[in-house]
Amino acid sequence: MAEEALVSFVTEPTIFGGVEAGGTNTVCVVGSGQGDVADRLEFGTTTPEATIQGAVRFFAEGTGHRIAALGLAWFGPLEIRRGHSRYGVVGRTPKPGWEGADVVSPFREALGVPVAVDTDVAAAALAEGEWGAAQGLASHVYLTVGTGIGGGAIVDGFVLHGLGHPEMGHLPVVRADGDDFTGVCPFHGACLEGMASGPAIEGRWGRPAEDLGPEQAAEAADLVASYLAQGLRAVTYVVAPQRIVVGGGVARLPGFLAALRRHFAGSLAGYPGLSEHAADDFVSAARLGDMAGPLGGLVLARRALGQPGVLD
Amino acid sequence: MAEEALVSFVTEPTIFGGVEAGGTNTVCVVGSGQGDVADRLEFGTTTPEATIQGAVRFFAEGTGHRIAALGLAWFGPLEIRRGHSRYGVVGRTPKPGWEGADVVSPFREALGVPVAVDTDVAAAALAEGEWGAAQGLASHVYLTVGTGIGGGAIVDGFVLHGLGHPEMGHLPVVRADGDDFTGVCPFHGACLEGMASGPAIEGRWGRPAEDLGPEQAAEAADLVASYLAQGLRAVTYVVAPQRIVVGGGVARLPGFLAALRRHFAGSLAGYPGLSEHAADDFVSAARLGDMAGPLGGLVLARRALGQPGVLD
Repeated sequence: MAEEALVSFVTEPTIFGGVEAGGTNTVCVVGSGQGDVADRLEFGTTTPEATIQGAVRFFAEGTGHRIAALGLAWFGPLEIRRGHSRYGVVGRTPKPGWEGADVVSPFREALGVPVAVDTDVAAAALAEGEWGAAQGLASHVYLTVGTGIGGGAIVDGFVLHGLGHPEMGHLPVVRADGDDFTGVCPFHGACLEGMASGPAIEGRWGRPAEDLGPEQAAEAADLVASYLAQGLRAVTYVVAPQRIVVGGGVARLPGFLAALRRHFAGSLAGYPGLSEHAADDFVSAARLGDMAGPLGGLVLARRALGQPGVLD
Repeated sequence: MAEEALVSFVTEPTIFGGVEAGGTNTVCVVGSGQGDVADRLEFGTTTPEATIQGAVRFFAEGTGHRIAALGLAWFGPLEIRRGHSRYGVVGRTPKPGWEGADVVSPFREALGVPVAVDTDVAAAALAEGEWGAAQGLASHVYLTVGTGIGGGAIVDGFVLHGLGHPEMGHLPVVRADGDDFTGVCPFHGACLEGMASGPAIEGRWGRPAEDLGPEQAAEAADLVASYLAQGLRAVTYVVAPQRIVVGGGVARLPGFLAALRRHFAGSLAGYPGLSEHAADDFVSAARLGDMAGPLGGLVLARRALGQPGVLD
């Protein structure tokens, strides 16, 4: 018995848990935090109680693994300052029932392990930095264009935080010539998310991006790219990343990435004239797809336990 | 002799040199890097050779102090990545004769001390963080509105760098209703700097901001504030600073700060709803005036020598 325990102690890697909670679905994974996934569960995001309980059940009894720490990649806005009395509490959101919900304490209490939380996009940025489109870079930004638009920045290997987390989807954008769409953001109307997110496409063309015919899809890709390029320019001029990684469903529109690079170059207008900005890989497609958030959750968990990885 | 040397070693603080080179003037200072200035020289910025030689003479023989390290707070764009082969070389600039000028090597060769360089605004941000309007904060942004618009960000006490330095003056801005001014930026036309810098005011009203009558000055303050507020919103949504410090000549227009706070609140539109963003001091006036850059140069020098200060 004692010998068996010792062997197990020596050979088994530490196992972490990761959760990505999005507006539609919640994905739970377990893994060693080295890019692997040993088990996975996906279910619909509903109320805070049901969603958190579903995840707790998975980690407590639904997998053969015992996790050492948990990383939550949650939709924002939420309080991510460690030591803040509202750490892990969801902020002002239109998602019914979620404003004010504490997403950290229930996990801590039920699982008895360290729990770290950050935005879904910060987690995705971490994962793309470790195993995806920004591997080996110290500073990059991950932007996702889907139901919402959000971004996470990595600076010298760490998630960029300050008073809170970034809110890159709500950048101001200059209206495209002839575009009179009012925008779908409940706060700003015609901000980046208001003009270029999935719901903005649906508001303009009457159907989701994935149901558009080839002509409309090309038109949508170009228009959305022209707005997102302004966001890329703002991000480039504010944090000076080495690369911008773009993910999300809307980014999968045919021709989107090429249009984005073209509009981005036009928006920079040759300033400040760095050759790196003109290189094709400065604006790269995300590589980890839907697994970026959950894998990033594992990075958050690993870091919560002080276990270094590639970027630490 | 030996005793005298020992006393001197114990009691005299290390003295650093700082240079702020702006488009119009160059300011050289010496000081201990604790906020004091022991000597100061100001002269017009001309050619790279004459400007650098004027500063070298000051540090070599124009002051009774021998500096241990030098910090350069230079106008951008310039290469600030340490270890880069073009470290300290000025980039694409409309300033005649300056593109491609190496501003670090001549100082290193002439003075034989460690030389660090960063943008004038990054240096000002450091100084405002140590002794000015952002004292005690880990993360803040300094923005200056004058001949140009520029910004520096401090994240966890360090200057935010990535592929290069930020270029916050060139953020895209949404045109104000009824404003048909084309903008003065040679690259982007109607970017933030193109619409809200000193030359933009002069282009609109036919005279510099400081020569405007009270009615025009109020009009200019409000219009410039409305554009700068968009920049503040972009900075807030991208780096989430704890405070934004605003300096520069245009910021001294009567009523400017109040107008800026009002437009900024309007631009955020209550999102993400943090009380800190609504507090008056979230947008603060710079406190160090024209000395922010030179004092920041001393911080750069101090750090180049590995001497910690308040933020280190």
